[in-house]
Amino acid sequence: MTHSHPKADRGFPTGEFEQRTAAAQKIMARLGLGALLLTTEPEVRYFTGFDTIFWLSPTRPWFVVIPAKGAPIAVIPEIGGPSMSQTWLSDVRTWLAPQPEDDGISLLADTLREVLPVGGVLGIPMGHETHIRMPAADFAALSQRLDGVQIADGTEVIRSLRMVKSQAEIVKIARICSIASSAFENLPNHIKAGDTERQAFAKFKIDLLQHGADDVPYLVGSSGPNGIVDVINRPSDRVIEDGDLLLLDTGSLYDGYSCDFDRNFAFGHASDEAKVAYDLAFRATEAGLQAARPGITTSQLWSAMAKVLEDGGCSAHQIGRMGHGLGMQVTEWPSNMPADHTPIQAGMVLTLEPGFAFGDGKMMLHEENIVIREDGAELLSRRAAPELPIIT
Amino acid sequence: MTHSHPKADRGFPTGEFEQRTAAAQKIMARLGLGALLLTTEPEVRYFTGFDTIFWLSPTRPWFVVIPAKGAPIAVIPEIGGPSMSQTWLSDVRTWLAPQPEDDGISLLADTLREVLPVGGVLGIPMGHETHIRMPAADFAALSQRLDGVQIADGTEVIRSLRMVKSQAEIVKIARICSIASSAFENLPNHIKAGDTERQAFAKFKIDLLQHGADDVPYLVGSSGPNGIVDVINRPSDRVIEDGDLLLLDTGSLYDGYSCDFDRNFAFGHASDEAKVAYDLAFRATEAGLQAARPGITTSQLWSAMAKVLEDGGCSAHQIGRMGHGLGMQVTEWPSNMPADHTPIQAGMVLTLEPGFAFGDGKMMLHEENIVIREDGAELLSRRAAPELPIIT
Repeated sequence: MTHSHPKADRGFPTGEFEQRTAAAQKIMARLGLGALLLTTEPEVRYFTGFDTIFWLSPTRPWFVVIPAKGAPIAVIPEIGGPSMSQTWLSDVRTWLAPQPEDDGISLLADTLREVLPVGGVLGIPMGHETHIRMPAADFAALSQRLDGVQIADGTEVIRSLRMVKSQAEIVKIARICSIASSAFENLPNHIKAGDTERQAFAKFKIDLLQHGADDVPYLVGSSGPNGIVDVINRPSDRVIEDGDLLLLDTGSLYDGYSCDFDRNFAFGHASDEAKVAYDLAFRATEAGLQAARPGITTSQLWSAMAKVLEDGGCSAHQIGRMGHGLGMQVTEWPSNMPADHTPIQAGMVLTLEPGFAFGDGKMMLHEENIVIREDGAELLSRRAAPELPIIT
Repeated sequence: MTHSHPKADRGFPTGEFEQRTAAAQKIMARLGLGALLLTTEPEVRYFTGFDTIFWLSPTRPWFVVIPAKGAPIAVIPEIGGPSMSQTWLSDVRTWLAPQPEDDGISLLADTLREVLPVGGVLGIPMGHETHIRMPAADFAALSQRLDGVQIADGTEVIRSLRMVKSQAEIVKIARICSIASSAFENLPNHIKAGDTERQAFAKFKIDLLQHGADDVPYLVGSSGPNGIVDVINRPSDRVIEDGDLLLLDTGSLYDGYSCDFDRNFAFGHASDEAKVAYDLAFRATEAGLQAARPGITTSQLWSAMAKVLEDGGCSAHQIGRMGHGLGMQVTEWPSNMPADHTPIQAGMVLTLEPGFAFGDGKMMLHEENIVIREDGAELLSRRAAPELPIIT
């Protein structure tokens, strides 16, 4: 069976960026922030549309300033000038980087001085899941130049915005989820016992690209007799054998948006123990699918899945986070876990990811991707098989 | 012609990590650092061998502490415990992350207190090309808990070590350079006028994987009539036509080590202007190959290439950085530029990357990868064709 993937335009209309900026400025006003400084790839892309993998190079910092009113201002290395000028931004300021003695700091300080009132507060994301992507010594120098400006945590601005996706974002995620679903469904046709993990992963990655993924930055997994013991591995030269379980988990991209789900396969045959564990994870996911809706919290969503696992004999103590937000990054806010009480809203894209230990230290993990609609969860990944697939 | 790629073992023997750690500790002693805190992927991998793409998820911080004596200590999320325990480290401390209210901070502070003498100095990379990968609010909380500990810049420790590669590192880079060379040489067999940029990039990426690249995280480039105008683009839906030039630049990986070089192709025919520009870049690279040797500086290496460009009619003012270090990352210290006076040493792996504007705002860029030996430069990439290749 071949699936036609959801259509998704490349990029976003300018209106979407204007809307994001206006929404950020509303929250900034509430928090008393006179400007917001962004230094990381997803945040810069979210507000500008600037999409480059040049971020992989640690050499140059990139800055975007959201003023209290008006469009964002880019303060970036000259090499990015032509690309940034293709975005909706009209104010693009560049310097000839790298220039270690003043790598954009005076240009950035002047820009911030220009948009911040005297005694103003500069917001910078400083909370959970953020970091400041520039040399710490440069940040100290910037702070000194901004003498009189107060710096405050701006995490809430981007967290609350990015957690709820627009329909244009959702179709991009839907498309990559559909592409990855097709590649997973095709996997038994070309991966066999006798392949090494590395060969199997390479074939799967090439198949994802051939199905239309732009890129496969995230692909982890593991194989082992009757189950796996680690879930964040790169592939090894281990040969997959009859009696093994194989888990593959991918964050593939379409137009800068990610899927994040996994699938399990057995080779030749599967033990009752593994089948029972698979069924338990399947039923926990099912409970998550039923529970996920606007009005409950992420901790309540966690509880719905945890109850199934506990009823199935898992000790609650073992059960950590069971899913998270998903979008421009393979993991985003919020977390489905007891300590995270984020109210679930329509437009959130989440993973449901129940996992637990079984047998002699083996792990079972299922994952699906959903979007929250007014009336509940809508699957973006095509649902895993209800019984452990066996590749013969 | 098919090439057999240089053989390179996966991973490193423990002795290599012991050597790196001892070398770091020697520099730390000279700088008066009682411990070094590392928070970023390449640094953690350099000292431990811990190799995971879990770093793509912004959710969890990862820490490694290098004490004044003895092996590094890992302070990491529990999900990475099994993998980290497979490395040469015996002291692996974990916490159940994510835990926003204390995401490893007290565990890390206790660890640092344990290895740092009273009044000790903690080194953290804070200089050019570094950043601190953890929430800024958490770093502030950590600093408070370390009251009495002085924090100093530890960039020099990792910069001086990572700039000079071991032979085991060099063969990994040599292998991926050979793989990428084969894919570039094969490109005219499957990329044709009429392809969109996106189709061409996808075919090239798949071919890189089929030639044995583990991954292709970095692939940028551009096409355009008689030349390109931007060098850090992702591919677009633009159709490549007769008379176009196409540039592809890849940082592909083998066992965690990167190549970084590009190739130019014309389609159907090429203008004299483009051929002359290609020849000038080729000769500038040639001058870099002749000049690169232990004893000169990166600014002198820059000058050798710049002289050819100036003699060819480029204004010196236009000429920025022309290459950089290469290894675990697609760009590393040092920079081949006027303001960087790093002495070139045997074992350094560098790119030579002369580039300039020609015609009506078009850009010409060449790049090769070399390792510095006692008697000069050894090519790791297979040299670009001396004349602009034309795909017909």
